[in-house]
Amino acid sequence: MAKKVPYRTYLPEEKIPKYWYNLRADIKNKPYPLLNPATLKPVTAEELYPVFTKATVEQELDNDTRYFEIPEPVRELYKVYRPSPLIRAYNLEKHLDTPARIYYKFEGNNTSGSHKLNSAIAQAYYAKAEGFSGLTTETGAGQWGTALSEACSYFGLPLTVYMVKVSYNQKPFRKTVMQVFGTDVIASPSDTTQVGRMLLEKDPDSNGSLGCAISEAVEKAVTSQNMRYALGSVLNQVLLHQSVIGLECKEAMEMLDEYPDIIIGCAGGGSNLGGLIAPFMQDKLTGKANPRIVAVEPASCPSFTRGRYAYDFCDTGRITPMAKMYTLGCGFMPSPNHAGGLRYHGMAPMLSQLYHDGYMEAVAVEQSKVFAAAVLFSKVETVLPAPESAHAICAAIDEAIKCRESGEAKTILFGLSGTGYFDLTAYNEFLSGKMTDYIPTDEELQKGFDSLPKIE
Amino acid sequence: MAKKVPYRTYLPEEKIPKYWYNLRADIKNKPYPLLNPATLKPVTAEELYPVFTKATVEQELDNDTRYFEIPEPVRELYKVYRPSPLIRAYNLEKHLDTPARIYYKFEGNNTSGSHKLNSAIAQAYYAKAEGFSGLTTETGAGQWGTALSEACSYFGLPLTVYMVKVSYNQKPFRKTVMQVFGTDVIASPSDTTQVGRMLLEKDPDSNGSLGCAISEAVEKAVTSQNMRYALGSVLNQVLLHQSVIGLECKEAMEMLDEYPDIIIGCAGGGSNLGGLIAPFMQDKLTGKANPRIVAVEPASCPSFTRGRYAYDFCDTGRITPMAKMYTLGCGFMPSPNHAGGLRYHGMAPMLSQLYHDGYMEAVAVEQSKVFAAAVLFSKVETVLPAPESAHAICAAIDEAIKCRESGEAKTILFGLSGTGYFDLTAYNEFLSGKMTDYIPTDEELQKGFDSLPKIE
Repeated sequence: MAKKVPYRTYLPEEKIPKYWYNLRADIKNKPYPLLNPATLKPVTAEELYPVFTKATVEQELDNDTRYFEIPEPVRELYKVYRPSPLIRAYNLEKHLDTPARIYYKFEGNNTSGSHKLNSAIAQAYYAKAEGFSGLTTETGAGQWGTALSEACSYFGLPLTVYMVKVSYNQKPFRKTVMQVFGTDVIASPSDTTQVGRMLLEKDPDSNGSLGCAISEAVEKAVTSQNMRYALGSVLNQVLLHQSVIGLECKEAMEMLDEYPDIIIGCAGGGSNLGGLIAPFMQDKLTGKANPRIVAVEPASCPSFTRGRYAYDFCDTGRITPMAKMYTLGCGFMPSPNHAGGLRYHGMAPMLSQLYHDGYMEAVAVEQSKVFAAAVLFSKVETVLPAPESAHAICAAIDEAIKCRESGEAKTILFGLSGTGYFDLTAYNEFLSGKMTDYIPTDEELQKGFDSLPKIE
Repeated sequence: MAKKVPYRTYLPEEKIPKYWYNLRADIKNKPYPLLNPATLKPVTAEELYPVFTKATVEQELDNDTRYFEIPEPVRELYKVYRPSPLIRAYNLEKHLDTPARIYYKFEGNNTSGSHKLNSAIAQAYYAKAEGFSGLTTETGAGQWGTALSEACSYFGLPLTVYMVKVSYNQKPFRKTVMQVFGTDVIASPSDTTQVGRMLLEKDPDSNGSLGCAISEAVEKAVTSQNMRYALGSVLNQVLLHQSVIGLECKEAMEMLDEYPDIIIGCAGGGSNLGGLIAPFMQDKLTGKANPRIVAVEPASCPSFTRGRYAYDFCDTGRITPMAKMYTLGCGFMPSPNHAGGLRYHGMAPMLSQLYHDGYMEAVAVEQSKVFAAAVLFSKVETVLPAPESAHAICAAIDEAIKCRESGEAKTILFGLSGTGYFDLTAYNEFLSGKMTDYIPTDEELQKGFDSLPKIE
């Protein structure tokens, strides 16, 4: 029987994890390695060094080391906004009249507004420590660009962000926040790279794409004297850094004599989900516990539920290494009416393998239902969620309603990865009744699959 | 000697105050009463009942009761976002190379983004408990309207917000957030009130003003069958509710063996400042301690530092009772180039009396300096402050620099009343070098003083 728990549980500062947990060490079927598209052989550390920092390349390729020490300067900055609260959603429970106990781990409590800061700090720190003169990255909706801006600013490291031009124009406030941190924000495609100039020559009015922005950011890093590139999701290193979410969460639940029956996270590239579930998945892999683990993705971009488990490029520009993952094909483009985030065609290789092996479930939800859940949640819990995070809320509500129907008092944990202050255009679309749903047809998905590299 | 303190100190949930503290009970020279402008006599409870709820009228007029019990449903909702953290600004200290210990109480940790929620919840609760069918209010920049929307939504109470038309058009995201909570947001002037229709007849393209929005909200409340009006600052009742800020703050500092030498708060109408300083001012009034208490206001709207202590209307529309306060005159309009918030012509009567009696200091700062402080703060502390709050940051930085110069390790406490996610247009203006400062000339101030009611 659980104790009477407070609304918000904060671990003391000294409980901020001292180590990141590398879930791969406990996975029997390791995720497939990244492949060099030219040779179709696993990429080596030497091949990755020109792109990433040395420390993160080593983390990327290490399937065996269980714990990586968190460098002290990283932990110092974690202290400014961590431990993040574990919140008991009493008001949501009451509203739903459910016997379920609902908890959420809230990661939106910093200027970047999302969990992305956990990995941004690590990547910025290593770049600074290894003597690089700057980082580059790309950003779409802007959470990652904002987080890396904040981290780079703290460590005094120049940052160039290639922001997809349509977002650059439609989300001017996101751009301003990055500029507050001194970041050089460039609308992509731009004339600062060869690939950008080529694209602009073909189509001077191009709105850009995440694929193009990745290409520009990587080109800028590898062609500059002393710069490196940082990525905010998908990669093993990112999921490693994000394990602080789950580690704190598990410790706080133990303090409350609680353990989740169901763990729910939204899934785009997998950074939030991978971090949240890490120590609980460890329990599952080692037979200590058997919680249900549920990934929630948009019905308009359903990589887990309707994708293929195949080698694919990580970007639509086909310049990155290939990863074996659940994917809709790097040529798949989610419908432009999709406002709810999580629009990545693939899924982190580590999570893909776990899903493939039956350790996780996945559900796909339509965006109008996601926004309805977001509005309900705002009203009762005083947090305005990012649309991405609202996918997890939506699934948690569904599970809590099932508990009401069955009378079971399950413990539900979900990740609230970020706030929605920069997504109010989408909220407005929903409130004014203009939001439509979109589920790709089998034919549309087939077009995406046709873009998969032919290597198998 | 102080203990080594964590970055963030959270009181346990049970330490959320059970009573609001009424500072007036400990003030020797009580604030002057509100006057009925028709009779020039102190307003009575009976005169206020048609406008406000019964409970808040009693709180408004009570100069003697030291503690008011916080109703349990109010405290339940406080638990969702309180206790708010007391943060040691180690990174700011390091950046400034100061021996000062800098603390801030962060009140932006909820969807409304500011401390305004503390009083909004109380006012919404009383309206619901007394059986009213709805509340009305006005909002300018939007913090108050958002907070009251959130509170009314929680208690299931309909809310109508009159939003100054220029903000309605320029801050569409603020409007959307209020709509998320189900609020009826009306651009003011509107055709829903007599005063609005009159104004529109004269000037169909009117941009509106806070004065007009107040008039519309009050008219709507008093002419409706069963509605009341709520106000977010200036009034005694609001400062009473906001005392939770200071009470939590003092308790957390005691836990850390700390006591502030200097307490700094931004001052518009006085709600945040009055709440933050309440228990520290009590110590000062009762001789237990003697901290310096500093109000920070914009140089473009300097009611404390250049205003008159006089009876004045609370609104530019001259329909409210008159309050004796430091004021620039209800006809004073801050320059349109002023982006930094805190644009109210007057100051809470209670704070005015304390300032008049020498218990507080006041400083005025220019907005470009305020935004420079805000950007610096964002970079080192991972919180993007509201421009209002950045006034306090700016003064705290000045005090910390004085400590560096004198070598004194003073303890500085300031209030960080809210976040700046809806103020990015102003940040952008600052970053792009387009922000200009404005200090009204003596002649301009004289015009404001000429608008003071002639009663003394």
